[in-house]
Amino acid sequence: MITIAERINGMFLDVKRAIKEKNASVIHELAKRQTEAGATYLDINVGTAAADQHDAMRWLVETTQEAVKTPLAIDSQKLDVVKAGLEVAKNKVMINSSQGEPEALDIYIPLAQEHNAALICLTMNKDGVPQDVDTRVEIAATIVSKVLEHGMDMDKVFIDPIILPVNVDQKQPGYMLEVFSQIKLLSDPQPHITVGLSNFSQGTKEKSLLNRTMLIMAVAAGLDTALLDVLDQDLMDAGICAEMILNKQIYSDSFLKAARS
Amino acid sequence: MITIAERINGMFLDVKRAIKEKNASVIHELAKRQTEAGATYLDINVGTAAADQHDAMRWLVETTQEAVKTPLAIDSQKLDVVKAGLEVAKNKVMINSSQGEPEALDIYIPLAQEHNAALICLTMNKDGVPQDVDTRVEIAATIVSKVLEHGMDMDKVFIDPIILPVNVDQKQPGYMLEVFSQIKLLSDPQPHITVGLSNFSQGTKEKSLLNRTMLIMAVAAGLDTALLDVLDQDLMDAGICAEMILNKQIYSDSFLKAARS
Repeated sequence: MITIAERINGMFLDVKRAIKEKNASVIHELAKRQTEAGATYLDINVGTAAADQHDAMRWLVETTQEAVKTPLAIDSQKLDVVKAGLEVAKNKVMINSSQGEPEALDIYIPLAQEHNAALICLTMNKDGVPQDVDTRVEIAATIVSKVLEHGMDMDKVFIDPIILPVNVDQKQPGYMLEVFSQIKLLSDPQPHITVGLSNFSQGTKEKSLLNRTMLIMAVAAGLDTALLDVLDQDLMDAGICAEMILNKQIYSDSFLKAARS
Repeated sequence: MITIAERINGMFLDVKRAIKEKNASVIHELAKRQTEAGATYLDINVGTAAADQHDAMRWLVETTQEAVKTPLAIDSQKLDVVKAGLEVAKNKVMINSSQGEPEALDIYIPLAQEHNAALICLTMNKDGVPQDVDTRVEIAATIVSKVLEHGMDMDKVFIDPIILPVNVDQKQPGYMLEVFSQIKLLSDPQPHITVGLSNFSQGTKEKSLLNRTMLIMAVAAGLDTALLDVLDQDLMDAGICAEMILNKQIYSDSFLKAARS
């Protein structure tokens, strides 16, 4: 599966401090460890630490690129901060993220095309994050139709139906599995389906178990990528094993080793 | 979920030896450990060890009952051996198993009714174990119709579509998930859906990971019971967590502890 590694994020205290102190070694270390753990993309998010988020994003992107060539996911809700990251990104890149209303998509899709970037689109609009199946799928349909309108490559589109913490509403995981199944049917070729997996276990006491159990069900329902903790090896193995069981990877006695390398 | 604990089986060397030597303490220990680990039923299978399988089954059932009151699943392909077990079983009991052709069902369903027993019915017939979705579902439909014909309580019926080892054919797990989904639709109330989970990882090197990953997907597709290794705590936790995520158990921070007790 396509994995977006979550750890270079100013919401984590070590990264917040590194950004403030321009301590490159902390970022280098996280970039290398996450790449070795199998990250397809490294998410880059300055959080709320920095006085100047544009400067912080530029520094974080450049510093990460000093250590690895792994593609980056430029993560901010602010368009200008995303643009600051894109300007200095050297390799394959992803934008994380656009909201799903037409006005936002008409800005973000051309921006992604201009930078040959992948784009995560959230199924949220001006009314906020939908709690039901139908509204999520409707917004996903809007995303797909805007992608077709702009002639963007569907393989670069990642729809994120926004997973909520299981301890907030236990009906939500079932809804999510239904949403994944329905998004798959919206177009052929189909867009990628992704989630910010750690949000699922936010505030719970069995984070790793919850994340990997939900990941396995999600993969069976059509999810093929996630923003997650790639340093959690049990979680990564669960994703690898789920894809092998679903015949997306060939079985051998050493299928884990084969997929990790 | 309903768990049928697999360890009291003459195919395991310790049990084989215990049967031969009439060593009750080995059986007592397995009965207690599996019960403490959360077994709903204890499977009782004499394997091929004993010269007289009837005697061995009677001894194994009686010996298990000396240690625990947990319901037993009398497991043999031979009708007479099943009957020998049923004769001495004191508590709630299950028959494991009948094949799915009408002639077999006309014998096993009345036998189950006579003993107020639950009954596992395999989706196999005289042609053997089907490899495809349609034949499995057809045989499941035959089972359901025979159950209705005999007026047996559907809640006592466990349909087992026979899971094959993943290293034999990687298309099979996907077929199984489809079969589970379709069996659910055959009747209302629906029969239980079960598998002999350890067979899935037979001959592989990542048994525990494979079993729990498949279990999670299977639970999401409708499986609600399995013959499995209840002593594998990661596996049991995966089952508990899957059911909680699907809103079949209430979330609390200590949902594992609550379900284990």
